[in-house]
Amino acid sequence: MGKFERSYQLKVSDIKIKDAFWTKIQNLIIEEAIPYQEKVLRDEIEGTEKSHAVANYKIAAGLESGEFYGIVFQDSDVSKWLEGVAYALSVKKDKELERRADEIIGYIEKAQEEDGYLDTYFTLKEPEHKWQNLQECHELYCAGHLMEAAAAYYRETGKTKLLEIAKRLADHIERRFGERKEHGIPGHQEVEVGLMRLYKETGIEKYKNLASYFIEERGKNPDYFVEERKKRGWIYFDMDPENREYLQCHAPVREQTEAVGHSVRAVYMYMAMADLAMEMQDESMYAACRKLWSNIVNKRMYITGGIGSTAEGEAFTLDYDLPNDSGYAETCASIAMVMFARRLLDIEPDGEYADMIERELYNGVLSGMQLDGKAFFYVNPLEVVQGVSGELFGYKHVLPRRPGWYACACCPPNLVRLIMALGTYAWTEKEDIIYSHFYLGQETELKKARICIESKYPWEGDVCYKISPKTKDEFTLAVHLPQYGEDYVISLNGEILDTADRVKKGYLYLRRVWSEKDLLRIQFNMRTKRIYANPLVRADAGCVAFMRGPLVYCFEQADQKEPLQTYRIPERADVKEYFCTDGALEGMILLKIEGEHLKAQDKLYLQERAAKERVWMTAVPYFAWGNREEGDMRVWMVE
Amino acid sequence: MGKFERSYQLKVSDIKIKDAFWTKIQNLIIEEAIPYQEKVLRDEIEGTEKSHAVANYKIAAGLESGEFYGIVFQDSDVSKWLEGVAYALSVKKDKELERRADEIIGYIEKAQEEDGYLDTYFTLKEPEHKWQNLQECHELYCAGHLMEAAAAYYRETGKTKLLEIAKRLADHIERRFGERKEHGIPGHQEVEVGLMRLYKETGIEKYKNLASYFIEERGKNPDYFVEERKKRGWIYFDMDPENREYLQCHAPVREQTEAVGHSVRAVYMYMAMADLAMEMQDESMYAACRKLWSNIVNKRMYITGGIGSTAEGEAFTLDYDLPNDSGYAETCASIAMVMFARRLLDIEPDGEYADMIERELYNGVLSGMQLDGKAFFYVNPLEVVQGVSGELFGYKHVLPRRPGWYACACCPPNLVRLIMALGTYAWTEKEDIIYSHFYLGQETELKKARICIESKYPWEGDVCYKISPKTKDEFTLAVHLPQYGEDYVISLNGEILDTADRVKKGYLYLRRVWSEKDLLRIQFNMRTKRIYANPLVRADAGCVAFMRGPLVYCFEQADQKEPLQTYRIPERADVKEYFCTDGALEGMILLKIEGEHLKAQDKLYLQERAAKERVWMTAVPYFAWGNREEGDMRVWMVE
Repeated sequence: MGKFERSYQLKVSDIKIKDAFWTKIQNLIIEEAIPYQEKVLRDEIEGTEKSHAVANYKIAAGLESGEFYGIVFQDSDVSKWLEGVAYALSVKKDKELERRADEIIGYIEKAQEEDGYLDTYFTLKEPEHKWQNLQECHELYCAGHLMEAAAAYYRETGKTKLLEIAKRLADHIERRFGERKEHGIPGHQEVEVGLMRLYKETGIEKYKNLASYFIEERGKNPDYFVEERKKRGWIYFDMDPENREYLQCHAPVREQTEAVGHSVRAVYMYMAMADLAMEMQDESMYAACRKLWSNIVNKRMYITGGIGSTAEGEAFTLDYDLPNDSGYAETCASIAMVMFARRLLDIEPDGEYADMIERELYNGVLSGMQLDGKAFFYVNPLEVVQGVSGELFGYKHVLPRRPGWYACACCPPNLVRLIMALGTYAWTEKEDIIYSHFYLGQETELKKARICIESKYPWEGDVCYKISPKTKDEFTLAVHLPQYGEDYVISLNGEILDTADRVKKGYLYLRRVWSEKDLLRIQFNMRTKRIYANPLVRADAGCVAFMRGPLVYCFEQADQKEPLQTYRIPERADVKEYFCTDGALEGMILLKIEGEHLKAQDKLYLQERAAKERVWMTAVPYFAWGNREEGDMRVWMVE
Repeated sequence: MGKFERSYQLKVSDIKIKDAFWTKIQNLIIEEAIPYQEKVLRDEIEGTEKSHAVANYKIAAGLESGEFYGIVFQDSDVSKWLEGVAYALSVKKDKELERRADEIIGYIEKAQEEDGYLDTYFTLKEPEHKWQNLQECHELYCAGHLMEAAAAYYRETGKTKLLEIAKRLADHIERRFGERKEHGIPGHQEVEVGLMRLYKETGIEKYKNLASYFIEERGKNPDYFVEERKKRGWIYFDMDPENREYLQCHAPVREQTEAVGHSVRAVYMYMAMADLAMEMQDESMYAACRKLWSNIVNKRMYITGGIGSTAEGEAFTLDYDLPNDSGYAETCASIAMVMFARRLLDIEPDGEYADMIERELYNGVLSGMQLDGKAFFYVNPLEVVQGVSGELFGYKHVLPRRPGWYACACCPPNLVRLIMALGTYAWTEKEDIIYSHFYLGQETELKKARICIESKYPWEGDVCYKISPKTKDEFTLAVHLPQYGEDYVISLNGEILDTADRVKKGYLYLRRVWSEKDLLRIQFNMRTKRIYANPLVRADAGCVAFMRGPLVYCFEQADQKEPLQTYRIPERADVKEYFCTDGALEGMILLKIEGEHLKAQDKLYLQERAAKERVWMTAVPYFAWGNREEGDMRVWMVE
């Protein structure tokens, strides 16, 4: 249970997910999203934003003629897709997909320059400008994603080609940047995470040291980007280098206490900080992570786990500023929160982190993908209004429908790589203890045991762990009991356990010599709960939201006759839960909630309250919104 | 009482305002705002936006060397100021001010070109581009304001120089535009209003006909501005000519049924439509005015009278879309609503119009000026949040403090010209009837009577009319009874009147042979009222606002200890009214309202409602907000 105790690294192939909820989604990603995204990357889909990302590599490889197309960090879409493919191949063998992925890796290999440099934008368009504009041009960001893809592809397939490409690129970067070399920090953090994964896969210390350099260097000179811009004299986006908080370089990372600036960059940075804290057993770095974590989850996060309250800079704003209809809550930011929480869990098991993984997964992450796997949200609003969302100034970024692709397409492949690796997020195995972080039906081969789980989560609170130990020694199994459940009844081989002194920080600790077929059963209630926001949250004042288990619910126009703002939730309202048996939401538990409808009137302002009538309203899981006819949606309802 | 019956035109000098509320404000404008604005226009104030508007005229007049500075419609600021001065000179003689105004009129005369053309931007900067860009360049808008100023200056001072300038300019325009001449419509409506005033002052029919042409031509060809842009091939602002609703040219004006586009342009257009309806006794034009009026006041207007819900295009949006923290509610738009309502009252006396004049004057108009007369709001929000308003994307236009001047300085002199002419808005005198539209302490010389009014409105409901008839014939005095009062007790010479069949559409009609010193006393209650918005207004769902008489109240941080979003108003709350006896709000009635404060907590989302405590809250008149320390403000509170 010691903090900073090293854990074994899991492969996706160690875990066979057989889960009523997640298997369907993984299959969807394998069958729909991955092939669809490949087609987009290869420009084979019409009617969506053009990607050209594979073509950029082919052109840079000299295999095709043409010009670079897209945004300066277009390459990263391919890396994220490849990372997703690496996991997908472990979930389900697919020789043809692997061949096509290898083909693309071949293009990447040929696009890499002799000295290891790899970035098709600069190779093709502005070779004279390499490494001059770290603020805007994201060469290091693209490198980081390539490293992550390479580590994953090697780990899951055993193939080394992409790993070697990534190492050559990392070596190239390491030769250039560092103490007593050229100083530099990335405009968009990610290379730090990539380097740490490369380090873990290869054991090559200089990668860890370079990650550490980029993290520790950040904010040492808050004018770094101002000076860089002066020096280079050219711009790409014309982003303000004086906006130090946006760039998270306003202070050294250990001194940062509030989550500020671009939310994805911020959390990618915190991920690397957590990686370094773990690897270096660095208490003060972990303390910095804790402070930033705490600022987010206690002051700057939507109930769905969404973060980033403004479209300007896709950024954090102020404590308790969480507008439902104009916020950002980028899918990538929720994904990053899962990855950040996962790293914190490795350092120190705490149910708070595991609960957050569930909150993000079942809400802010999953809402990013249409139920058919073919369309994606970048922005995940908590309130959508026809004629306003996507239309009016201040709301144009809030789309009421998931588009097929984006000019800046970071989110769709990011979601794929997270969900396909989901099994590895569920466990931490250390020398003497196995942590199970969330419920996921599966058959899993750990070092100390084979564990099969049957789970009806998140719809029902009934989970069974079958443990087949591989050792005769005593070891601990620690199972997270989510805060979303209550009235836990836990039995081992049919005997109810007294858990009073066995639960610590949200985990149930069971230490024993395990026997073949030991059966741990966890049963709990998941009644629908009313949730209130801190009164300091202006946007939710006077409102109530509904959660059932980890799922946030929302109200859609599709189920309600009148405009959503005309409904109220009484202080005491009957709630009925039912399985939806047909249509787009089949198999989900929906809620019937007793509400009041206020009758509209002719006048705009009156001295009387509007007349009310009792009605039954329907609420659906937030992640599933926007899958039926287009219309208003809201999570928070006036009470 | 007939519709379309012609009325006598009043001069400001016919009315001596002696009013506890308005005299102070008029004096403030005379002593502070007019001299201050003159100094700004003459570039004698440091630390505010530079105007250069007088200098532009002097340079165009050849009296000074230099270049044009400012926005393409900078000239209009001078015209609006001159119009305000014209009225101010009638309120209070000031030889020195008159001399300086005449001096500026002298510059304008010299700046006018031989053929009557007058617009310093084009004279100085782009003479080759005159009349090519009606969409963006506002030559006709500036001409309209000059005509209004000229009509006012002539009417109040009897001097003809500015009138002659305006006539030469109007003649120039009339030679160029019209049926069987060059076709054209203004990008920013106003010339139509100016032409109608010039017509009323001079009786020259062609001015009325040209106004009618511009109004009737509008929307006949919805592509007019698209074609204009193609033809000219150059741009000023690069505004989209395809945005036909923004430009109110999407349909002929008689067919327009919803208030759309730029709100000030819209209402200036409706004003001219009302002028034409009246002059032409045109029922269908009046019907068009009624429809647009009704769409605004029943679906698209803030409780303060503010209109325009989005900063993008300073425009109307959708029915019931009235965001409190990001709306626009431009001061000029509220001013225009007063002017529109005034014109409708001339056509047909209806208390609805008069009530709206009060709503606008006491709220959306007056909030535009700081209590010291030296700073002005362009945007009048109903909710202000520190760190958000004026700072974050979507809220940058919402300033928490009135600035001294603006680069686009339409509002400050517009407010001055309205308030200085306020007396003329209070009356309509027709052949056989005198209408009093709102309460204003004064001594007034009408055709049929001298009327002295004593009034404590809007603080108290006690108003006396002393009528000294100038005729022995019977005539009617019709006095508006505002909907903001209740329990009216009306007495004539001490005898209580039975008003049952004397009140029609908000006006009390008294017909008799009046005797010297006849005394009509109107007493009524003005208790504080809770106001609810139509449930279709999303932004006000679950909220309550407070009005007392015509005054909307708001809550400011200055009076409340905790952030405003943490307060609730119970369904039944005690309200105490009291006169403020010191500080910036001295002399105003403030409200003490029983409220609840919700205690903040550590966590962001909880299953329990926050703990409450009873507190007394303070509300102040909305027009007076932002005159103490800077902080949050809100009109609508969660109930």
